[in-house]
Amino acid sequence: MIVYGRNPVREVLRGRRRHAAGEVLATESAAREPWLRGVEVTLSSPDALERACGSPEHQGICLDAGPYPYVGAEEILTRADPLIVALDELQDPHNLGAIARTAECAGVDGLVICERRAAQVTPAVCKASAGAVEHLRIARVANLVAFLERARQAGCWSHGTAADASVPYHRPDYTGGVVLVLGSEGRGLRRLVAERCDDLVRLPLRGKIASLNVSAAAAVLLYEALHQRTGLDTVPDGP
Amino acid sequence: MIVYGRNPVREVLRGRRRHAAGEVLATESAAREPWLRGVEVTLSSPDALERACGSPEHQGICLDAGPYPYVGAEEILTRADPLIVALDELQDPHNLGAIARTAECAGVDGLVICERRAAQVTPAVCKASAGAVEHLRIARVANLVAFLERARQAGCWSHGTAADASVPYHRPDYTGGVVLVLGSEGRGLRRLVAERCDDLVRLPLRGKIASLNVSAAAAVLLYEALHQRTGLDTVPDGP
Repeated sequence: MIVYGRNPVREVLRGRRRHAAGEVLATESAAREPWLRGVEVTLSSPDALERACGSPEHQGICLDAGPYPYVGAEEILTRADPLIVALDELQDPHNLGAIARTAECAGVDGLVICERRAAQVTPAVCKASAGAVEHLRIARVANLVAFLERARQAGCWSHGTAADASVPYHRPDYTGGVVLVLGSEGRGLRRLVAERCDDLVRLPLRGKIASLNVSAAAAVLLYEALHQRTGLDTVPDGP
Repeated sequence: MIVYGRNPVREVLRGRRRHAAGEVLATESAAREPWLRGVEVTLSSPDALERACGSPEHQGICLDAGPYPYVGAEEILTRADPLIVALDELQDPHNLGAIARTAECAGVDGLVICERRAAQVTPAVCKASAGAVEHLRIARVANLVAFLERARQAGCWSHGTAADASVPYHRPDYTGGVVLVLGSEGRGLRRLVAERCDDLVRLPLRGKIASLNVSAAAAVLLYEALHQRTGLDTVPDGP
């Protein structure tokens, strides 16, 4: 996988999880980025970079990072009281990247995506996530319903989102093991996935547009959960 | 302005604010959308649509909607206890569209953008907002600091966001007249804008990435404000 763009490449280097990563290709200008000090860089022209990346959005830098290091779902479920985001056949790479970025910022224990009929972690997703995918545990599952069952056995509560749900999103208790389940753009959660959730919550809509973007809904839910889990007043920020 | 895409064109028609709107051009397939019943449509080829829109993302439909109907800032400030979002030189059309969509869903009274060095409402923004801009009051101001001063005189409190602020975002009182002020991607609020805010709030970061995307931050703040203003438990949703 050719990862391109300044944030994505920087986070590949910071994350140290891409063990098959090759050399960095960069324009003269991009090669002067301070975070590249001590990194071997091969100078390249913008045209050559665009050919290598298959995208004009390389910002003068890319590297062949090898395959994305997905984790197993068990690695996420065995963490203590995990906060997990699960995406039911999310289609749009930009939304996947945006959700990954917010999830990483909120300190989630993992993100679960569907193996089929869903956006996977591609270079465009790395870019949309500003490199957050390099620090986040992301697992692919063949069957999301089965994953939610395993999550329940591991002590997690699953909260799905649905436009017609009766429970306001801030009412559930998001402490302890929690899976926030978000549906695909337009269609929402599949019926069997919704039935497997312990409850369904809604985000209020006060306008004329039918629905929030799924990445906006994810941000609202994640920060509500973070608020409940940490008590934002008392816990200091950051690493 | 050539508005393209199914949601944007549908919302132009629903919004009825584009008084100079011309005829709808659509492919045979798009022309069968149920919401086009009773609307005069000129059939067009995908190639002709792409030429008209200057974008391949037309989804088979577009119309010349005329200029975007910006409102004056006073029209927003004179509403009772307004909830307002102000963007300080936001650059990215996708972020502007995403924030407009979330703001419309949250029922804000208006969105304020800078006239210069900032993304304006273009067809790409209409698309990214899923047509929400057709229902939202959007004002352009030459001087955001002066706008915040007028907002203060109108009885509003301005809450800016800053990564190093000491006040957690959920602590302020967001009832009454409120302006939520968000900065540009990367740079945040300009100093004079930050100084003009009544307080600065931060969103907690628990990961390794330096910041939330501005549209994710907007979603979190808007729903916190909505929660405080309406009591989500008691007020029924929607129009």
